[in-house]
Amino acid sequence: MTKNLTPVTVVGLGDMGRALAAAFLDAGHPTTVWNRTPHRADDLVRRGATRAATAADAVRASRVVVVCLLDYPTVREVLAPAGGELAGRTVVNLTNGTPAQAAEAGDWVRGLGADYLDGGIMAIPPMIGQPGALILYSGSKGAYEAERELLERLGGSRFLGTDPGAAALHDLALLAGMYGLFGGFLHAVAMVDGPARGFTDELLVPWLTAMTGVLPELADQIDAGKYTAQSANLAMQAVSLANITTATVDRGVDPALLAPLRALADRRVSEGSGGDDISTLVEGLRVGAR
Amino acid sequence: MTKNLTPVTVVGLGDMGRALAAAFLDAGHPTTVWNRTPHRADDLVRRGATRAATAADAVRASRVVVVCLLDYPTVREVLAPAGGELAGRTVVNLTNGTPAQAAEAGDWVRGLGADYLDGGIMAIPPMIGQPGALILYSGSKGAYEAERELLERLGGSRFLGTDPGAAALHDLALLAGMYGLFGGFLHAVAMVDGPARGFTDELLVPWLTAMTGVLPELADQIDAGKYTAQSANLAMQAVSLANITTATVDRGVDPALLAPLRALADRRVSEGSGGDDISTLVEGLRVGAR
Ligand SMILES: NC(=O)c1ccc[n+]([C@@H]2O[C@H](COP(=O)([O-])OP(=O)(O)OC[C@H]3O[C@@H](n4cnc5c(N)ncnc54)[C@H](OP(=O)(O)O)[C@@H]3O)[C@@H](O)[C@H]2O)c1
Ligand SMILES: NC(=O)c1ccc[n+]([C@@H]2O[C@H](COP(=O)([O-])OP(=O)(O)OC[C@H]3O[C@@H](n4cnc5c(N)ncnc54)[C@H](OP(=O)(O)O)[C@@H]3O)[C@@H](O)[C@H]2O)c1
Repeated sequence: MTKNLTPVTVVGLGDMGRALAAAFLDAGHPTTVWNRTPHRADDLVRRGATRAATAADAVRASRVVVVCLLDYPTVREVLAPAGGELAGRTVVNLTNGTPAQAAEAGDWVRGLGADYLDGGIMAIPPMIGQPGALILYSGSKGAYEAERELLERLGGSRFLGTDPGAAALHDLALLAGMYGLFGGFLHAVAMVDGPARGFTDELLVPWLTAMTGVLPELADQIDAGKYTAQSANLAMQAVSLANITTATVDRGVDPALLAPLRALADRRVSEGSGGDDISTLVEGLRVGAR
Repeated sequence: MTKNLTPVTVVGLGDMGRALAAAFLDAGHPTTVWNRTPHRADDLVRRGATRAATAADAVRASRVVVVCLLDYPTVREVLAPAGGELAGRTVVNLTNGTPAQAAEAGDWVRGLGADYLDGGIMAIPPMIGQPGALILYSGSKGAYEAERELLERLGGSRFLGTDPGAAALHDLALLAGMYGLFGGFLHAVAMVDGPARGFTDELLVPWLTAMTGVLPELADQIDAGKYTAQSANLAMQAVSLANITTATVDRGVDPALLAPLRALADRRVSEGSGGDDISTLVEGLRVGAR
């Protein structure tokens, strides 16, 4: 049944690596796995994966080597002893990192004669293999096109260009958005009495969903560089941010997560942007490339 | 056509007050309006509203007085000269403020012989009068029940209890959530190249929508006080937050909006919570009531 499907190796079996390997196995790909702590492969082996004794053995087993480790220094540490085995293969690195790290890894891998595809996983492990998962790719276009069917076992895919750092950049920007959302959530539930779950389901999620609908209009203002408030001016919003802060402290909760946004809003108001929308704050974030 | 509908007064015709008055007018309620800067009433008057010369005149015109001003000090300043006219009426204060301010305003209004209903508007002005708008209420239950039909001209309503501060508390908590979302959005669009609109529509909004789906599970962890990571441990997330920060600075963007969340994550990891989910950060926000 599996004989015509591309064999694949997965290096790194943390929460994400195990989900990736499981999705390949579920689709019937011959799957070789390796992890520093071997027992994390046990379930996958029971489901048909082949356990490699070393990372070099794992690399040798497949033309496509998917890497999902904690960070880029770990990727280098793990792959270095297998470097001599990389020639002619494709490394698909789904480890989170910066655009600069992706570029550097690409140089190193290509220097060893392999193709390099960098990826950013926009999903949590339970979403892998489901239609809602999206993986951003950049780097070798040939590798992306050749392995697209295999890669889409993991979820949807999107190729962002041959600059190997493009996927990392978009990944990190999306994560910044997510951490804003999570920080707002944590602040909100810390403030209210009673079960966080009821508040989240009945009030917070519907409200955040409605406010997500405002983002395209804010994006248009940013693209135009014209921030004039349509219906919610920054001077008024600065008062609300002050009220949030006061009430947060009154409740015994640390208002720190919103403090920089409030400071930026106050600064923009004092600079004369009180009639702008909240989108105007983007100007205060652009401090100039280093 | 309008003769059987409750007359209503709207004090404060900023962006929100005008939307409130317009919704009452659209539903056919005799509507009296007052604003410090009179010309902001012009359009409403053309649509059938009655312009009051003073706030006291406005109060005298209707049994129900809806107030929507910049802040609570302004509410007191505007209503004080009309204080003698309040007895027997219902004040519905939709001005943003803290629970303590709502309680104080309730005491003052009740002391003048009027009913007090506090409200928090969970909508932007274009949503007012539409099904998606929600207004939270607390304070006089009798007033809420008596005026519910009138109030629901503005959107859905929810009564949160007789503690006048309950609406303000939930309003501010929801706004904290929204400002987290907005801060994350601003950080994200500041990082990427190209039009913010395309990035927002194609990548950010779908991603944030998916991640909003994670919040109920995080809320359950918070309610249980058990934060053990199911699929995304904090030690790994701390690395991603470091990567976001590095890449943000590399792009010439100020990483300040996420700095407190990152510091809190690092602190919880160093305290031994690296195997927890992000929900564990709520423990670091609860610093004790003052
Ligand atoms: N989980 C998510 O929701 C998610 C979502 C999107 C992207 N990601 C990304 O996916 C990558 C992996 O995340 P994860 O959730 O799987 O993390 P994890 O569960 O913490 O797994 C970390 C992996 O890195 C390995 N590792 C760490 N230090 C090592 C070292 N010095 N030498 C060898 N191996 C080492 C671990 O091996 P041991 O088992 O031996 O410790 C394990 O395989 C990260 O870059 C993360 O940002 C994760
Ligand atoms: N806009 C929104 O998206 C939104 C959403 C939810 C809740 N709210 C809340 O609704 C309230 C009003 O917001 P808004 O958007 O309408 O703000 P706005 O457009 O800035 O209007 C402010 C209002 O307050 C009046 N005002 C300010 N200082 C005054 C003073 N010293 N004396 C008399 N009147 C004074 C203004 O009168 P002038 O016209 O004479 O300046 C105007 O009527 C705020 O509490 C806000 O938090 C707004």
